[in-house]
Amino acid sequence: MRIGVLTGGGDCPGLNAVIRAVVRKGVGVYGHEFVGFRDGWRGPLEGETMPLDIQAVRGILPRGGTILGSSRTNPMKIEGGVEKIKDNLATAGVDALIAIGGEDTLGVAKQLFDRGVSVVGVPKTIDNDLNATDYTFGFDTAVNIAMEAIDRLHTTAESHHRALICEVMGRHAGWIALHAGMAAGANVILIPEKPFDIDRVCAYVESRFKTRYAPIIVVAEGAHPVEGQMALQDGELDAFGHVKLGGIGEMLAKEIEKRTGKEARTTVLGHIQRGGTPTAFDRVLATRFGLRAIDAAHEGEFGTMVALQGTEIVTVGLDEATKELKTVPVSRYAEAEVFFG
Amino acid sequence: MRIGVLTGGGDCPGLNAVIRAVVRKGVGVYGHEFVGFRDGWRGPLEGETMPLDIQAVRGILPRGGTILGSSRTNPMKIEGGVEKIKDNLATAGVDALIAIGGEDTLGVAKQLFDRGVSVVGVPKTIDNDLNATDYTFGFDTAVNIAMEAIDRLHTTAESHHRALICEVMGRHAGWIALHAGMAAGANVILIPEKPFDIDRVCAYVESRFKTRYAPIIVVAEGAHPVEGQMALQDGELDAFGHVKLGGIGEMLAKEIEKRTGKEARTTVLGHIQRGGTPTAFDRVLATRFGLRAIDAAHEGEFGTMVALQGTEIVTVGLDEATKELKTVPVSRYAEAEVFFG
Amino acid sequence: MRIGVLTGGGDCPGLNAVIRAVVRKGVGVYGHEFVGFRDGWRGPLEGETMPLDIQAVRGILPRGGTILGSSRTNPMKIEGGVEKIKDNLATAGVDALIAIGGEDTLGVAKQLFDRGVSVVGVPKTIDNDLNATDYTFGFDTAVNIAMEAIDRLHTTAESHHRALICEVMGRHAGWIALHAGMAAGANVILIPEKPFDIDRVCAYVESRFKTRYAPIIVVAEGAHPVEGQMALQDGELDAFGHVKLGGIGEMLAKEIEKRTGKEARTTVLGHIQRGGTPTAFDRVLATRFGLRAIDAAHEGEFGTMVALQGTEIVTVGLDEATKELKTVPVSRYAEAEVFFG
Amino acid sequence: MRIGVLTGGGDCPGLNAVIRAVVRKGVGVYGHEFVGFRDGWRGPLEGETMPLDIQAVRGILPRGGTILGSSRTNPMKIEGGVEKIKDNLATAGVDALIAIGGEDTLGVAKQLFDRGVSVVGVPKTIDNDLNATDYTFGFDTAVNIAMEAIDRLHTTAESHHRALICEVMGRHAGWIALHAGMAAGANVILIPEKPFDIDRVCAYVESRFKTRYAPIIVVAEGAHPVEGQMALQDGELDAFGHVKLGGIGEMLAKEIEKRTGKEARTTVLGHIQRGGTPTAFDRVLATRFGLRAIDAAHEGEFGTMVALQGTEIVTVGLDEATKELKTVPVSRYAEAEVFFG
Repeated sequence: MRIGVLTGGGDCPGLNAVIRAVVRKGVGVYGHEFVGFRDGWRGPLEGETMPLDIQAVRGILPRGGTILGSSRTNPMKIEGGVEKIKDNLATAGVDALIAIGGEDTLGVAKQLFDRGVSVVGVPKTIDNDLNATDYTFGFDTAVNIAMEAIDRLHTTAESHHRALICEVMGRHAGWIALHAGMAAGANVILIPEKPFDIDRVCAYVESRFKTRYAPIIVVAEGAHPVEGQMALQDGELDAFGHVKLGGIGEMLAKEIEKRTGKEARTTVLGHIQRGGTPTAFDRVLATRFGLRAIDAAHEGEFGTMVALQGTEIVTVGLDEATKELKTVPVSRYAEAEVFFG
Repeated sequence: MRIGVLTGGGDCPGLNAVIRAVVRKGVGVYGHEFVGFRDGWRGPLEGETMPLDIQAVRGILPRGGTILGSSRTNPMKIEGGVEKIKDNLATAGVDALIAIGGEDTLGVAKQLFDRGVSVVGVPKTIDNDLNATDYTFGFDTAVNIAMEAIDRLHTTAESHHRALICEVMGRHAGWIALHAGMAAGANVILIPEKPFDIDRVCAYVESRFKTRYAPIIVVAEGAHPVEGQMALQDGELDAFGHVKLGGIGEMLAKEIEKRTGKEARTTVLGHIQRGGTPTAFDRVLATRFGLRAIDAAHEGEFGTMVALQGTEIVTVGLDEATKELKTVPVSRYAEAEVFFG
Repeated sequence: MRIGVLTGGGDCPGLNAVIRAVVRKGVGVYGHEFVGFRDGWRGPLEGETMPLDIQAVRGILPRGGTILGSSRTNPMKIEGGVEKIKDNLATAGVDALIAIGGEDTLGVAKQLFDRGVSVVGVPKTIDNDLNATDYTFGFDTAVNIAMEAIDRLHTTAESHHRALICEVMGRHAGWIALHAGMAAGANVILIPEKPFDIDRVCAYVESRFKTRYAPIIVVAEGAHPVEGQMALQDGELDAFGHVKLGGIGEMLAKEIEKRTGKEARTTVLGHIQRGGTPTAFDRVLATRFGLRAIDAAHEGEFGTMVALQGTEIVTVGLDEATKELKTVPVSRYAEAEVFFG
Repeated sequence: MRIGVLTGGGDCPGLNAVIRAVVRKGVGVYGHEFVGFRDGWRGPLEGETMPLDIQAVRGILPRGGTILGSSRTNPMKIEGGVEKIKDNLATAGVDALIAIGGEDTLGVAKQLFDRGVSVVGVPKTIDNDLNATDYTFGFDTAVNIAMEAIDRLHTTAESHHRALICEVMGRHAGWIALHAGMAAGANVILIPEKPFDIDRVCAYVESRFKTRYAPIIVVAEGAHPVEGQMALQDGELDAFGHVKLGGIGEMLAKEIEKRTGKEARTTVLGHIQRGGTPTAFDRVLATRFGLRAIDAAHEGEFGTMVALQGTEIVTVGLDEATKELKTVPVSRYAEAEVFFG
């Protein structure tokens, strides 16, 4: 077989580990050939390929990013996109495609499969918000980076009697905030799933200051106050009506300063959460995803994606990936609330 | 209620996170009181306690080790041990005990429970070889430490055309070697579950040298050759007939040098794998274990231990912990073998 | 002797290492007694002390922050401040004071010395902008934290064809930006000492994109464009007329997007640069500063501060600390410019 | 000009940073051409070269090892070695050579210079024992790796009432042991410069145990007892009469167990101290060394090597590198002794 591989969507530590595992097992065990498509769906859409053999994947396991490049190009929004992809796959002599990406990338994969393309998916999201799998690679790395940053904030908070806010990724789901905040001993964690009451946040801040320790607040970028509080102005929202990146953390700092009279400072971690070398957890998960994906392609299990269930890697339908967002359940947030204040 | 807490056995990152979660929820949510017993079972045996309140657990979440101390004292091997413990628990006014430890500690907990002591267990092993739980805390930290060390060895191996061996923990189970070796791209991984063929190891070493890259071998301390190879001498074995710590790595280096004519060097990671601050995965798991353990004690679920199944924390019978060792299955080792050579 | 110790100004990794060294040598070698003053000059001003013996400094070497607390209280701006301090030192039976802090703290120390207080200073600034010493502790830690963050940004920048900007500390001097940018291979480094030409910055950005790699820009918070470019508005400046924290990075992103049509994103590292455990360099330097400071106090070398010259720790006049800001010289910036574009 | 570059001797983080800086400035500023010689002096001896242009040095700044490979080949010990090198340099059209290495590599460079070869040296030693420069790159990385390992040992030592020994590099000079031990709060530091009294070491161990804390001993691989103590046997010494690698740490553990009755365990860090990504200090120093070395070659300052003096990079005679070993002076060891016990 000749198999194409592409990576779509945002950066995520572990992408290269998946690619390496696919190629190593595909060539070494099954004797298949591979071709890389550049920059997500742009590659098959425009027919831009790159060599993808054993030599190309040497040494990439520990590296962040993706040697294939990525993009958010959506062929479904392009006139004749599907036909162009089918033509380019045929031209490149590709029998099957392994598509590594998040909701959008896998959504396209599903539609291509429905139109006759042999696709296997590998789920990828820093945010850990895909329903069909216990965890996605990249999440553990992001959580550790955020945790280390919050660990560092603790000493500054304590030495200077100042509230510190750390804004982490998570527009629709609060998994990174929940895990990083729990791991680093945050005094309050705010997530998109549960609109926060600013009065209660300030009460935590003030009670914490009474202990001679200073509060650390971890806030997901998609968190927001309950209706009617901290009214947002037009310039503070993006095209989707969400608070802009770096927005909610800054706003919260201002509001806390205004209401408590205490200094508050915000750090926005931004892209450093999704770059760099993956943790062991993510390298092992990504490698096992890659191994299972090439098995699936080899055995003709198309229209599926790989997933983690307990300690096993399984395949589920590609539509599982996109059916529903996995958000933080009330019970998990309640665990974290034990440590608030 | 008044609840005693103890930690037994070897050091393990996350012990303090368990203790903190138990106390924070026990005091804050349930209104219980706590007392710490020092140095594992030695504490209740000799009646040595320490205060264990909110103040005592402040700031301990990120710290390695255990504020309660530990030991390998086994009260079952001491004349009248059980009675002494029951007396000392009564004297200390303790209604229930939370015992955090490995196979040995939980084995004692089981026997005490059978004789009427109200015990809840929390499983702990760096080695991840307890059957009743998907993972134990400390394991992820150990794997990351070993992975980072192996990452570093890669550059030296490549610059100097020298085989490098990294000996990691794992006397009976090869989980750390498997995960760290897979995460760091080892060329061979040797585990206790599968006696190795030294000829094959040397063949991997030689084929790797032909690529201008140098081989990295990860070996669990309990790995050993197939019967008849590399005959061990008396001084190289410990009281149990195992190769001594730091033994198999050194022996392997000598054997490889002898057989291939290439230089080989060994690093023995030893105790650095079990000390220091836990990873996010271990801090979250340990915290959730602690929360569930105090729930179990509060609700009178004695004779149980907490466990991870998928993403849920559950309770299982204390005897589950000790029934069977969880070793690396053939299928998991086969995943790693794809990358050998 | 009975010696008081205080720490003033912003947080800085290594403060606890200085305190520990002062006390360990002062008690162990010289037999002196110590008392801690809380929260910088607020401590002696209000007579708030804490015990400072061998037990108090145990285990603090690797910890960020300061066990003594800190503040920006300036007794010179308080009516009768000097007299209050002298009274409180007398009440506490203190013969000499070791003041650890930056320009402001040491400026006060100098004035107190001029009015008869026996003071030894220890210089502290994350920013490395004190003229009398080759390096200050905390700087190496900040540079490593920033470098690791920029290392992580590289993979995201490369995978997504997006310009990434990292804003680091340095209001008046660009040392952190220079070292972190040089260490992490930034494509442009902008420092307060050299107003930047936005046209040239954009030219670098565009030429970099042509290589299929994406540009990383490191910008000190105090950097600013040459006169007349990127006119700042009122809300974007703080009370001193400086761009607000998190300001220049954001502004630069907008300007680059506008001028080049490429996406640009900013990460503001903020307080994580000054918290957490110090690097080895900073722990050794801070420890040696502490040892030399207690020697100076013991030998009556008051009115001095300790300093690093080459590999030696020496004492210089307290006024040396405040005479002149050490900014990045043209020759050092020229070294970095070799790698621009 | 056409300039050859080689790296000789043991691995050292920062080698690639030097190579990159040489090539980036050499090509970008001066317009020179470069050729890489493989595996130290073996390259020019056997005429084995590799391309070394801007593309070859892209992305190598953060990577450990050396893209040129290394070896301990000494052309002075090979019949006609010098002539072969001169011939091969002529054949490759090389006008000048930049040799990056330690005492041995620079010693050869000096002899070649004396026989008419245009050489500039860049000093490299993990051990920091070159007299002509304040620091060498690689040392700071090694110290940080060792410090982090010792930090981790602390918690295990404290939880288990066990003496822990960490053996670090340093056959002739104790710089790594001194800095890592001081940075990590070791209770005893043993270096080659000062033969240790085993009775005194055991006294420290026992007094430490009385505090409920456990002792950490950092020992350089070249440390040894005072004459007559702990008599070594033949199998424990290498060809030079030194204790074998991993030898002194193990021996010390046995001796401490025998004399104090307390458990003692050893970790031998070995090659992980010299691999992996360099710290910021080492990346900046290595980069500045590379920049200065190409300046020297460009300006015809042959027979020199670059060196750090204070914060400046200067050139000194190549013979400076090899004249005398820089060992730990008594005054520096005395600083560390303050914290013993």
